[in-house]
Amino acid sequence: MLNISLRRFINRLGHDFSEPALLEQALTHRSFGSTNNERLEFLGDAVLGMVVSEMLYRHFPAASEGDLSRLRSVLVKGEALATMARAIDLGEQLRLGSGELKSGGFRRDSILAGAYEAVIGAILLDGGFDTCRACLVAWFEPLLQSLSLGDEHKDPKSRLQEYLQGKGAALPDYRLLNVSGEGHAQHFEVQCCLVGVSADYRGSASSRRKAEQAAATVALNDLQIQSNKTGKGR
Amino acid sequence: MLNISLRRFINRLGHDFSEPALLEQALTHRSFGSTNNERLEFLGDAVLGMVVSEMLYRHFPAASEGDLSRLRSVLVKGEALATMARAIDLGEQLRLGSGELKSGGFRRDSILAGAYEAVIGAILLDGGFDTCRACLVAWFEPLLQSLSLGDEHKDPKSRLQEYLQGKGAALPDYRLLNVSGEGHAQHFEVQCCLVGVSADYRGSASSRRKAEQAAATVALNDLQIQSNKTGKGR
Repeated sequence: MLNISLRRFINRLGHDFSEPALLEQALTHRSFGSTNNERLEFLGDAVLGMVVSEMLYRHFPAASEGDLSRLRSVLVKGEALATMARAIDLGEQLRLGSGELKSGGFRRDSILAGAYEAVIGAILLDGGFDTCRACLVAWFEPLLQSLSLGDEHKDPKSRLQEYLQGKGAALPDYRLLNVSGEGHAQHFEVQCCLVGVSADYRGSASSRRKAEQAAATVALNDLQIQSNKTGKGR
Repeated sequence: MLNISLRRFINRLGHDFSEPALLEQALTHRSFGSTNNERLEFLGDAVLGMVVSEMLYRHFPAASEGDLSRLRSVLVKGEALATMARAIDLGEQLRLGSGELKSGGFRRDSILAGAYEAVIGAILLDGGFDTCRACLVAWFEPLLQSLSLGDEHKDPKSRLQEYLQGKGAALPDYRLLNVSGEGHAQHFEVQCCLVGVSADYRGSASSRRKAEQAAATVALNDLQIQSNKTGKGR
C-alpha cells in the first residue's frame, strides 16, 4: 500500500507505524480537509516539550530554569523544527489543499514544523510513550550535544561560524540562488557553501537574512550529526 | 526521619519517594537558598502539560486544537494548580526564606503553583514517567470528567453556579471574612457557603473578586471529587 517515497520517509523516521492511518493524518494539512493534523500537532507539541525538557534538565545540571527555557526554545522553535522536517524530506509527503500546494506550502516553516509535531503525536499514539521518547532522543541528542549554555542567545550563523573556527576551518560563504515573488510575498533561496564540504546546504525564507539563518541551521545540524557519527565531535 | 505532617502529605500525594531529598528540594522556594525548586518546576511544568494534553486529546475526540489548548490552560493555570496545592496542604510543607514566610508566601498562588509543579518534576525523577503519569491522572481525572467543551470560556463562579443549578441546588453565598493589608498589598479572604454543605470553602487573593473565584474553584473541585467518589456525578 505504501509507495517507495513514503517507505523511505518511514525508514528515516525510525518508527514503523502499526496504524499507517495515523501517519497519514499527521501529514495532512488543514487545507486538505477536515480530518487533518491539527489535533496531533497539539499532542506532539506537548510530548516534544516534555522530552526535550527532560533531556535538557539531565544534560545541564547547573543550568537555571531560565537558561533551560531558553535552550528549549532554541531546540523546539518553528524554524528549528522546520529544518528537521526538511532533513527527512517531510515536505514531499505532505497532503495540502490545492491553494497551499500552488503557493509552495510544503516549503513553509509553519506548515513543516506543524506536521513534524503532528508526526511526533502520531508516534506517541501508535507506539506509546517509550517508543516516542526513544525517537525524540535519537533526533535531538546530536543537537543537544552541540549546545552550550549561552548558545540560546546566539543565532545559527554565529553558531556555525564559531563551530567552524573551533575546527580551524574557513568561514562559510552565503550565495543568493534565487528570488521569487514580489513585495511582501518575496521568497529568497540561499546556499551556505563550506570549503571542502560537498553537501548542498540551502535555506529559503521571506527575507535574505532569514534564508541565510535557515541555511546555516541546516549546515550546522548536518555537521554535528556527521561529527557525532564519526566520533570526532566530542 | 519524616515528621507526621510530612508523612501525611506524602500519603495525600500518593507517591512514596525513594529519594526523599527530591521531595525536599521540590518544597524549597528560591527565597530559602540556592538549592531550590526552580529547575524541578521547569521539569514538572513540561510533564504536566504533556500528560494533561494527552488526557484532553483522548477525552475530547471532537475538540479542535484551539479548544484543547484553552481547556488545558483552564486545568494547568497557576490559580488552578494553587487550588490543588491547597487541597493537599502543600503550603504547610514549604520551605521559605524568612521574608516570604512573614509576608505569607505559603498562601501565594505563584509560590504554591510553582511548588506543585516542582513536586510533579520530583515524582518524575524519583519514580519514572509511568508513575508520574499515574499520579497526574489520579489528580486530574475528576476535574477532566467535569469539564465540558465551552467551559474554557467560563470563570469558576459561573461554572459552580451552573453545576449547582444542574443539581437543583440553591446558589452559593460569598461572605467576606477578612481584609488585611493596605492599598496595593490588600488581602481578601472569602468563604463560599453552600446550603446543606458543611465543608468550609475559602479563597484568598489580592481582590475580592479573585478571592471569590478562588473559593468557587475550591468548592467546585471538592463537589466534583465527592460526586465522582459516590458515583452520582456521571
